[in-house]
Amino acid sequence: MSWVTKITKIEPNRITVRGQKLDELMGKLNFAQVVYLILKGELPSESHRKVLDAILVASIDHGVTPPSTVAARTVASCGVPLTSALAAGVISIGKHHGGAVEDCMKALKGAVEDANKKGISFDEKAREIARKLKEEGKRLPGFGHRVHTQDPRTKKLRELAAESGLKGPHLEMTECLEMALKESSGRELPLNVDGAIAALLCEMNFPPSLGNAFFVIGRVPGLVAHIYEETSTMKPMRTVVPSEAEYQER
Amino acid sequence: MSWVTKITKIEPNRITVRGQKLDELMGKLNFAQVVYLILKGELPSESHRKVLDAILVASIDHGVTPPSTVAARTVASCGVPLTSALAAGVISIGKHHGGAVEDCMKALKGAVEDANKKGISFDEKAREIARKLKEEGKRLPGFGHRVHTQDPRTKKLRELAAESGLKGPHLEMTECLEMALKESSGRELPLNVDGAIAALLCEMNFPPSLGNAFFVIGRVPGLVAHIYEETSTMKPMRTVVPSEAEYQER
Amino acid sequence: MSWVTKITKIEPNRITVRGQKLDELMGKLNFAQVVYLILKGELPSESHRKVLDAILVASIDHGVTPPSTVAARTVASCGVPLTSALAAGVISIGKHHGGAVEDCMKALKGAVEDANKKGISFDEKAREIARKLKEEGKRLPGFGHRVHTQDPRTKKLRELAAESGLKGPHLEMTECLEMALKESSGRELPLNVDGAIAALLCEMNFPPSLGNAFFVIGRVPGLVAHIYEETSTMKPMRTVVPSEAEYQER
Amino acid sequence: MSWVTKITKIEPNRITVRGQKLDELMGKLNFAQVVYLILKGELPSESHRKVLDAILVASIDHGVTPPSTVAARTVASCGVPLTSALAAGVISIGKHHGGAVEDCMKALKGAVEDANKKGISFDEKAREIARKLKEEGKRLPGFGHRVHTQDPRTKKLRELAAESGLKGPHLEMTECLEMALKESSGRELPLNVDGAIAALLCEMNFPPSLGNAFFVIGRVPGLVAHIYEETSTMKPMRTVVPSEAEYQER
Repeated sequence: MSWVTKITKIEPNRITVRGQKLDELMGKLNFAQVVYLILKGELPSESHRKVLDAILVASIDHGVTPPSTVAARTVASCGVPLTSALAAGVISIGKHHGGAVEDCMKALKGAVEDANKKGISFDEKAREIARKLKEEGKRLPGFGHRVHTQDPRTKKLRELAAESGLKGPHLEMTECLEMALKESSGRELPLNVDGAIAALLCEMNFPPSLGNAFFVIGRVPGLVAHIYEETSTMKPMRTVVPSEAEYQER
Repeated sequence: MSWVTKITKIEPNRITVRGQKLDELMGKLNFAQVVYLILKGELPSESHRKVLDAILVASIDHGVTPPSTVAARTVASCGVPLTSALAAGVISIGKHHGGAVEDCMKALKGAVEDANKKGISFDEKAREIARKLKEEGKRLPGFGHRVHTQDPRTKKLRELAAESGLKGPHLEMTECLEMALKESSGRELPLNVDGAIAALLCEMNFPPSLGNAFFVIGRVPGLVAHIYEETSTMKPMRTVVPSEAEYQER
Repeated sequence: MSWVTKITKIEPNRITVRGQKLDELMGKLNFAQVVYLILKGELPSESHRKVLDAILVASIDHGVTPPSTVAARTVASCGVPLTSALAAGVISIGKHHGGAVEDCMKALKGAVEDANKKGISFDEKAREIARKLKEEGKRLPGFGHRVHTQDPRTKKLRELAAESGLKGPHLEMTECLEMALKESSGRELPLNVDGAIAALLCEMNFPPSLGNAFFVIGRVPGLVAHIYEETSTMKPMRTVVPSEAEYQER
Repeated sequence: MSWVTKITKIEPNRITVRGQKLDELMGKLNFAQVVYLILKGELPSESHRKVLDAILVASIDHGVTPPSTVAARTVASCGVPLTSALAAGVISIGKHHGGAVEDCMKALKGAVEDANKKGISFDEKAREIARKLKEEGKRLPGFGHRVHTQDPRTKKLRELAAESGLKGPHLEMTECLEMALKESSGRELPLNVDGAIAALLCEMNFPPSLGNAFFVIGRVPGLVAHIYEETSTMKPMRTVVPSEAEYQER
């Protein structure tokens, strides 16, 4: 009849998360460290901690245009609880929005494994992938962006990985793929933030099925900020049109 | 036609969150600092950072019994995307589950303001509140817990606040209320973790309507851990009975 | 340890809903009749059946502008399952959108009871309510509409109620309120479709807390139609701007 | 800039659904007829109307054990609005729960088309499918049930189809598949209610991607009944254990 959980043990006046007393983690570890612990079952090294914090910060918000933000603000304007509006935003994070992390992780892992198995260079493997995508008229998840040609978050995540000594085969593969895609398509298809997060999560050995989760964990506070702004400054039952929004710093 | 947002400005290759370039925050600030920034519009002091990190860590998980966990695992077992299962967990955080943060913030703010206005001591105000609750047969949100008589998270949050110099009128009021409630009811009704978070958020001057949001932001990674455990180790379409769960550290 | 449910009994090869074998209801009763049965515990009279069918039909859709539709289509464009997009639409039905049914039911029930208790005429009671609303600068839920000055659904629901012999005190009160509101405010504030549904549900003796449910049950197929149109005819990750929509009959 | 919708046109005092004035449908058509109209763009014949009503009635509830019911009741017990609890139930209807309708529609359509293309009998095609499933250790969606060996809903849907003259190739294929699966596996794997709904929707020429939608539209009132029972008769923040439920007719 019983089933097993390895996450958290609850006893009167004692809470144990992944074998550690929760109150002893408080004040000693920051939130990103405990996020890592609860998802992976072990504490991060300092370099992993630094990179995870940067991934969560990179994901925190992207203004009023993402569908998750439009959905969350639209629902918030209907007079429902904050958590209901937040849920509407969270639901929308799927295949076409945020979902590139998981799909890009699978692509990168597959590419690295296949190159190693076949004993070919990463450059050769990347060109093979680019050729196949061109033939099939497909895009590679994690490459290219609607707004940014040089995504500042990608650049920073790559720098932080290099500084932290996290450079590994998946990050290397992203560079080979950028070159091969440019060669094959004749235009820039640079690694976007989803792709950079994907490469870093691969280097930290997280499973692809958790890929989108990091994006969501990072984005939730951004969605909360939008919901709060909507309910505290706008009229109820409003049509949220992103193109009509004007940014004011204060 | 236009409307105003003050959260995030998007330009090609440039993302500005609350007036700060996002890529410059990455690697320099941890996630909790940027959560504070996006919700409040300013960076936290080191003491506020420390307390916010502890609040988020305290909220991360409470095992398999909370309704949000049962809902998230139940939905996850149906073969839907991770974000859909997460949304089911998030929706359930309401008046009776996690919602005590907002209600307790309102109660503490009201109590402090009213004592100051009437020029009475916090002890006197707390006794007045306890008397009124007794007459009306009501409970005070943020006090008492089903499982914990001395919640280790409450103790730690109070210690961290004291260490960080965050002690203020709302925390003081929680002590007066604990005494008054004991006196009036004849039994211990200690401050629970929701109440402790509420008092600290009051000291950091967050609005009550954002109260539950911090609990949710902290709990999302815990829900993700449960959803991942459910989908990676359990059979589909399962009835999740918390009382049949057995904790294993490894 | 046990708890009681009175809705549906499941035994091998036998399903009993509110005391009736489900397969015997199929083919004999239409859907609205079984909706009535499952929610009320008894079968509707022919007049109640007719009115409930009309309420559900009246609620089925209101084009692309309602927030629930915008939310559902926005989420659908992200590549999530149909049910996830539908959930985003359902969540948004709250205080400011669809929620007037419940609030108007409470207002009508209160008005009728109070008039009876005080022994005053419905006209007198309606004027009292209109005066109080004017003093407090409040609106009465269920009266007035952004688009329609004479809502064709309201007119039809009133006609059907009259034809079916369902005319009762709550419907009568809506007429007194329309006159009193016009007198007091100097402009037309006609009963809208939420208010008409509210009055009819009061006459059929449903509890106000189920009021919004009928609107939701009726609206779900409309949301499904929008989600299907979105995913089968539009590009992914689209910004849904209702004012740019053009209606084509074929 | 503009985009096209073909569902509903809103003008002041005039609502047109799929080319028909909504108020003229009220009182004349029942809900299932308008559900058919809004999803298909045309009115159903009497036989299609009858079958659709039966599909919706068949889907209305299955007691306290389905995950959608557990999720909806669990969330309802947290003190959130009815529509939020309903959304949690709706989200859970996915691949493993209700989702068999879509998958079975695809399987039946594929089987019928392939048999016709190859010029082989339905029996031969069914045996081919059963062999392949056995080799791959897979199950056919829409066949077999945890509780019912002879699902009374399946039997009734088949009878109604026959009575209504709706018998067609997809229904015929379900019979061939039942025999082939029995032959191949040595045990009964009868068509379940999802499979019967799938076959009927194929005969009525609905697309498979709308398959699960009919199950959801039918189940929403059942979920509402459970949410209302939960909030009106149970204590807040309850653990919902289906195996401890006891059915009472009154």
